[in-house]
Amino acid sequence: MKSTVRIAAVAVASFLVGSFASTITSGQDKWYPSRWGAADQRGAANRITPAKVLDAKGMITAGKVYQLGRVYEAGMPLYGTRHYSLKIPYAFQMPGKNQANYHDDIISGELAQIGTQFDGLGHLGIGDLFYNGNRRADFVTPDGFKKLGVENVGAIVTRGVLIDVAKYKGVPRLSSQYAISVADLQGALQRQKMEIRSGDVVLIHTGWGSLWMKDNTTFGASSPGIGVPAGEWLVSKEVVVVGSDNWGVEAFPNPDPALTAPVHQLMLAKNGIYLHENLATEDLARDGVYEFAYVFAPLRLKGATGSPGNPIAIR
Amino acid sequence: MKSTVRIAAVAVASFLVGSFASTITSGQDKWYPSRWGAADQRGAANRITPAKVLDAKGMITAGKVYQLGRVYEAGMPLYGTRHYSLKIPYAFQMPGKNQANYHDDIISGELAQIGTQFDGLGHLGIGDLFYNGNRRADFVTPDGFKKLGVENVGAIVTRGVLIDVAKYKGVPRLSSQYAISVADLQGALQRQKMEIRSGDVVLIHTGWGSLWMKDNTTFGASSPGIGVPAGEWLVSKEVVVVGSDNWGVEAFPNPDPALTAPVHQLMLAKNGIYLHENLATEDLARDGVYEFAYVFAPLRLKGATGSPGNPIAIR
Amino acid sequence: MKSTVRIAAVAVASFLVGSFASTITSGQDKWYPSRWGAADQRGAANRITPAKVLDAKGMITAGKVYQLGRVYEAGMPLYGTRHYSLKIPYAFQMPGKNQANYHDDIISGELAQIGTQFDGLGHLGIGDLFYNGNRRADFVTPDGFKKLGVENVGAIVTRGVLIDVAKYKGVPRLSSQYAISVADLQGALQRQKMEIRSGDVVLIHTGWGSLWMKDNTTFGASSPGIGVPAGEWLVSKEVVVVGSDNWGVEAFPNPDPALTAPVHQLMLAKNGIYLHENLATEDLARDGVYEFAYVFAPLRLKGATGSPGNPIAIR
Amino acid sequence: MKSTVRIAAVAVASFLVGSFASTITSGQDKWYPSRWGAADQRGAANRITPAKVLDAKGMITAGKVYQLGRVYEAGMPLYGTRHYSLKIPYAFQMPGKNQANYHDDIISGELAQIGTQFDGLGHLGIGDLFYNGNRRADFVTPDGFKKLGVENVGAIVTRGVLIDVAKYKGVPRLSSQYAISVADLQGALQRQKMEIRSGDVVLIHTGWGSLWMKDNTTFGASSPGIGVPAGEWLVSKEVVVVGSDNWGVEAFPNPDPALTAPVHQLMLAKNGIYLHENLATEDLARDGVYEFAYVFAPLRLKGATGSPGNPIAIR
Repeated sequence: MKSTVRIAAVAVASFLVGSFASTITSGQDKWYPSRWGAADQRGAANRITPAKVLDAKGMITAGKVYQLGRVYEAGMPLYGTRHYSLKIPYAFQMPGKNQANYHDDIISGELAQIGTQFDGLGHLGIGDLFYNGNRRADFVTPDGFKKLGVENVGAIVTRGVLIDVAKYKGVPRLSSQYAISVADLQGALQRQKMEIRSGDVVLIHTGWGSLWMKDNTTFGASSPGIGVPAGEWLVSKEVVVVGSDNWGVEAFPNPDPALTAPVHQLMLAKNGIYLHENLATEDLARDGVYEFAYVFAPLRLKGATGSPGNPIAIR
Repeated sequence: MKSTVRIAAVAVASFLVGSFASTITSGQDKWYPSRWGAADQRGAANRITPAKVLDAKGMITAGKVYQLGRVYEAGMPLYGTRHYSLKIPYAFQMPGKNQANYHDDIISGELAQIGTQFDGLGHLGIGDLFYNGNRRADFVTPDGFKKLGVENVGAIVTRGVLIDVAKYKGVPRLSSQYAISVADLQGALQRQKMEIRSGDVVLIHTGWGSLWMKDNTTFGASSPGIGVPAGEWLVSKEVVVVGSDNWGVEAFPNPDPALTAPVHQLMLAKNGIYLHENLATEDLARDGVYEFAYVFAPLRLKGATGSPGNPIAIR
Repeated sequence: MKSTVRIAAVAVASFLVGSFASTITSGQDKWYPSRWGAADQRGAANRITPAKVLDAKGMITAGKVYQLGRVYEAGMPLYGTRHYSLKIPYAFQMPGKNQANYHDDIISGELAQIGTQFDGLGHLGIGDLFYNGNRRADFVTPDGFKKLGVENVGAIVTRGVLIDVAKYKGVPRLSSQYAISVADLQGALQRQKMEIRSGDVVLIHTGWGSLWMKDNTTFGASSPGIGVPAGEWLVSKEVVVVGSDNWGVEAFPNPDPALTAPVHQLMLAKNGIYLHENLATEDLARDGVYEFAYVFAPLRLKGATGSPGNPIAIR
Repeated sequence: MKSTVRIAAVAVASFLVGSFASTITSGQDKWYPSRWGAADQRGAANRITPAKVLDAKGMITAGKVYQLGRVYEAGMPLYGTRHYSLKIPYAFQMPGKNQANYHDDIISGELAQIGTQFDGLGHLGIGDLFYNGNRRADFVTPDGFKKLGVENVGAIVTRGVLIDVAKYKGVPRLSSQYAISVADLQGALQRQKMEIRSGDVVLIHTGWGSLWMKDNTTFGASSPGIGVPAGEWLVSKEVVVVGSDNWGVEAFPNPDPALTAPVHQLMLAKNGIYLHENLATEDLARDGVYEFAYVFAPLRLKGATGSPGNPIAIR
């Protein structure tokens, strides 16, 4: 008897949001238009300049490559009602004396939102509003987004920084729901003798990823991750992507029971900063590789919410 | 009235190949075990060494990144009976006063074999035999390959070389079915004052890609591409990947009507060299960028025949 | 070069309707709550009583069965961006000396809205309103409808009447966009010496189905079908289902260019009467079988918009 | 934390069967060509004659209809690695002042082999051989069967008989793995004062279906069902379909550990008799309805292994 462990979908009662009042979380300053203009669709990817690419180049000293993407496979943790299926149809036989024949894979699922996943700017919003103040009705169609699709992001080649918070806290993995603080990030960076620069990608090692395919039940039931203040501090550092070895980057459920996914809103909607979830950061942490070239080019899925992928770190 | 143009599936009568006689194309020398041993599953990816990564680093001088992946979208050319579907379900509403809600995409298709696609070593064989002499019955299951799955490839970071054959021949695009010769490759390289090194990735610009989403009917009906001798010459150069701006890398239909996809067999099955199809090489060609860092990390789809992707060239 | 002919999606610019003003088509009387109560989810299926089942029984005299469902296959006409894919994965081998092994099919698509299709009550609405005044936000979720799902319909076993309008008009098939009138229905019934009773299913033979898989381009570009007055007349007859041998039952595009699919709204939303599209009515018409037992039990797809199927007529 | 309970896939090591020796289970007499000729693709469906349809008519006395199909829904028991996904994309908006807009469902899965399912004649074989001696290589393609596809079956309208074995044995449900014997069938029929006629459909009520969506773990881990001798007895009665309220009709795992699914082989491959799995027989059993009109028309899925459906019993 096999069972598929599912990540706790907090959307206990998912329903249509089209009729939502668009009241924004109280106390928020006006967060749009974006700093890159009212028409911008790329958010913090605009920070990837030739100078940052060359900055990334400077990180490459040993020629060693780390794959940060996890294997997509049956039985991996899946959020809510998402699914993943891969089957191999019978071989297709081609004509000719050389007996060529080939296999395809037939795949279905929420491909941009399972396993190692890169959240695009139309993925998550605040009521009816998304990045750059785009209203749902203005860009969402059943056939894909008319704006904010992940095909707009472009390749991200920049300096990457791993912040090993677990190591800093002296534990193999942070505890369930632990909300990483600004002090944690600063302390860990100080231990690593490192700073964050504008245009960097920041990956947070929490150790939670050690549960992946080992104890999927625990992995999916909750998660440590950055808290809102830590998120705001990263925003102030002008990063491009925040990634982590857990399924939500931020703490789930949020320590404040009245909030769900506020860091997602802060990053994606308000600041155009991407999230990279379910990264395999353990090898970087093991080797103490804290800065590197981060390279990721999202699949150019037209109108999609995000992208699967296998980002890499090169040092 | 919309219509989906389909790439001419040469498998006019696809049927089961399980009972094939395993006679190998006559005149072939014994091609397995592979040079990387009888257990090897990675083929030419073994040529990606730290030295090659540093070789790639040396190509980066301007910090400019080219996306080589095409947009995956409804209406793109598809081979045979493959399909691609992306839909946006209604938003999932999360609990909490902060009104978080999110979109997924539900995607189905032969994801590893549509659009810009990277052919893995289990994709295409010779009768019942695949790379390293693996017999179909020994590694193919309905739930994915037990060996040769694309998750074994790993990241490819190496020097990339674009061979602009169209430019060398003085045409915007090569003609239908044109089989690129060894002399073409050598002449084009000479014009570019460039050589291929062991462990490189070689991309062939034929100009055929200019038809993509412009004239899909012509694009899919046939294709210029490398002929068998040109393929053998590239094998002798110890490349890792051969890519092109068409759907098959090689000439389709093959000039020899008795053969179909012999270069696929030569590369994938006999030499463990990967193929990268439907690349967007036009910007490299336009800018005369003939060497660069090629970076591609296949999605780690367990047991899959290949991978979609957005490979990049950095100079 | 194969091509998939698509039925002209009139949704040239599909967009989100969540924010629609819910103004109902002007001049409409209040159409909800339904005659079966404000909580009803089954609409005209409530008319299927034991008496109607026995009425159906009375139609069976020869023991001959007609399949009204078309074959679902690659290349069939598909509306808009819908798709259909069926692949056979490699066989699954079971343990045991008896060598049992089995095949599955992996299918994807808008299964309830392709080929022969039965439209449920949540399929099509008027602005934000659907059958029985249900508001979109009250019953639509990404994981299926909370109300009006096709699993609520139940089996439909009743007297069926074929109205051969093509025969009455003396043509093999009605012309493109022809709007069938009340007089057409009445005249054809008179020719057939037949009347419609409360609780019947009415099938309209237009001859348009003769184009199916013969000339898909013409088939999908437009369609004859019942006009609004004819629809209203059928409503007055208290039918349960209206079916036809075309893709929309009603005339497409509507003769009034300011309207799209008004008969769908009339039937599904306002009167809870189901539509059965792409029926194979030609054999009934050929044999002059104008009344019969109609039997159809929708797949109980929880929360779905409709159902595929193979309804039958028994005489 | 939700979990999907899966029916114990006995195919612990699924692998390719193409190279199987085609030795048939020892001791079997030659079982092909079929009694309906070497070209037959319909098997026992040939027994559905007008006389049997009229026989079915005779069963209808009260006009009461029982739906025998279970609801297809997320979380239902699934065999092995099969999946089922249904999502509602955003509404498609149509042009026009009448504000028509519609919902589709996007569905994927092994649709013909999940939930209430009707096994076609190409679903399960003996080594490389299937119904009528068809060899795998002769009819299986990646795009569907060239022969034995479920679209050939046609509508089944005939007398149905429910054999309530649980009642006969005096238990609410038979025990795990219990192999129903010939004596059980005969005894239960005697209690019901009923006999099986040629061309009938026989449904076996085991009570196992009471676990559906109540205790999916127990439901899927094993199953009572008919044993081989009982199967042979039903074959001798010239039935058309054997159905049951469990997932395999026969006992799983088979009491003989050297065998898996021998009744499937007996029925589908050797005798062209269909199996109908996961039927909702409880209402018939509760009401003591032991004979009825059974009506089922498989979806005409070209080249498919079987069909989902909602068969009905009318009395």
